[in-house]
Amino acid sequence: MSSITFIGAGNMARTIGTRAIAGGNTVEIMARDQSKADALAKALGSGTTTGTWGAVPAGDIVITAVLYAGVVSTVAAYGDALAGKTIVDISNPFNAAFDGLAHSEPTSIAQEVAKVAPADAKVFKAFNTIFRGVLENGRPDVFFAGDDPQAQADVAAFIESLGLRPMHVGGLKMAHWLEGAGVLTVGLAGNGVGHGNFALGVGEVNG
Amino acid sequence: MSSITFIGAGNMARTIGTRAIAGGNTVEIMARDQSKADALAKALGSGTTTGTWGAVPAGDIVITAVLYAGVVSTVAAYGDALAGKTIVDISNPFNAAFDGLAHSEPTSIAQEVAKVAPADAKVFKAFNTIFRGVLENGRPDVFFAGDDPQAQADVAAFIESLGLRPMHVGGLKMAHWLEGAGVLTVGLAGNGVGHGNFALGVGEVNG
Repeated sequence: MSSITFIGAGNMARTIGTRAIAGGNTVEIMARDQSKADALAKALGSGTTTGTWGAVPAGDIVITAVLYAGVVSTVAAYGDALAGKTIVDISNPFNAAFDGLAHSEPTSIAQEVAKVAPADAKVFKAFNTIFRGVLENGRPDVFFAGDDPQAQADVAAFIESLGLRPMHVGGLKMAHWLEGAGVLTVGLAGNGVGHGNFALGVGEVNG
Repeated sequence: MSSITFIGAGNMARTIGTRAIAGGNTVEIMARDQSKADALAKALGSGTTTGTWGAVPAGDIVITAVLYAGVVSTVAAYGDALAGKTIVDISNPFNAAFDGLAHSEPTSIAQEVAKVAPADAKVFKAFNTIFRGVLENGRPDVFFAGDDPQAQADVAAFIESLGLRPMHVGGLKMAHWLEGAGVLTVGLAGNGVGHGNFALGVGEVNG
């Protein structure tokens, strides 16, 4: 089992946190608004704790569950408090039309996080290809990207503890294409696929 | 049923052509090397014809089944011979390491094709997320992108005739992210997923 800290107390922290608790993980919530952290910790129950925003997280895996525009600045503000941590960016930096990314360069929020995170932090991208409702009700594949082999195994174990299948797509540079897969997912939903009750996944062939 | 022309007589033309014939479509092969076009037409059988490279294709749907570096120049060379056609780019412009695209701009081969194709041609991206072996032996979802509504219906009908499920992800600008999905697919294969016997697809959730 893993020890997880969510920075952010919104819907994604609640959804992943609920599965994390059910999977036997230890969960901590941090939020700028301490009352929101307290409320979510109470709602999750099962020994969920809260930490002080900006302090060293209790979790080995830190999930930045804030809006995409705030992810990099949040990690920068935490600074050395994230030394040695595995940081998981789950954001989708969609443009205003939701048909592309907010940035035109071949980068990603996760790659930008890596530029401001402590040198010994291990940054991953995960979960961004899955609509929240699907994460609540389904068993979607979880694509993730990141470089450090031990942290990769840790993230995979955490995903498995949620009852989901981890799918490592490669190093952190693949985070750009995972953000693109988020765009494709929105595109498919806009074309009526599964009434939004779907996720990209891996279909194996018995050839 | 559809009438299809392949420009190119290589493995992808053979693979998709085999399914196209089985699905009752009319198939024409064009290649720079006429002897290769003749050989593939003979191998496919069932009335498969050949055309002269650069002439007006017999098919309403024209699949550019050449290496990615040659797709745009091929369409440019055909010029007005492709007027009114639905052009389907199936290429994967991978970089040398197969871990990214050969172009760093937010474009795609399909979008570049649209720039040189006749104004009334309708350009689509499709099939590029599927390994050839999977297309031969499996029933993968076929993601496709393109703008024209009637041509979109035509491409979807063609994909269905192959016994496969068409998944429209949006307009032609999404071709960039489909090329990225090709990169993700190679990344997953490199991580040992399904021994390469898989394809990205849509998993529906019964939530």
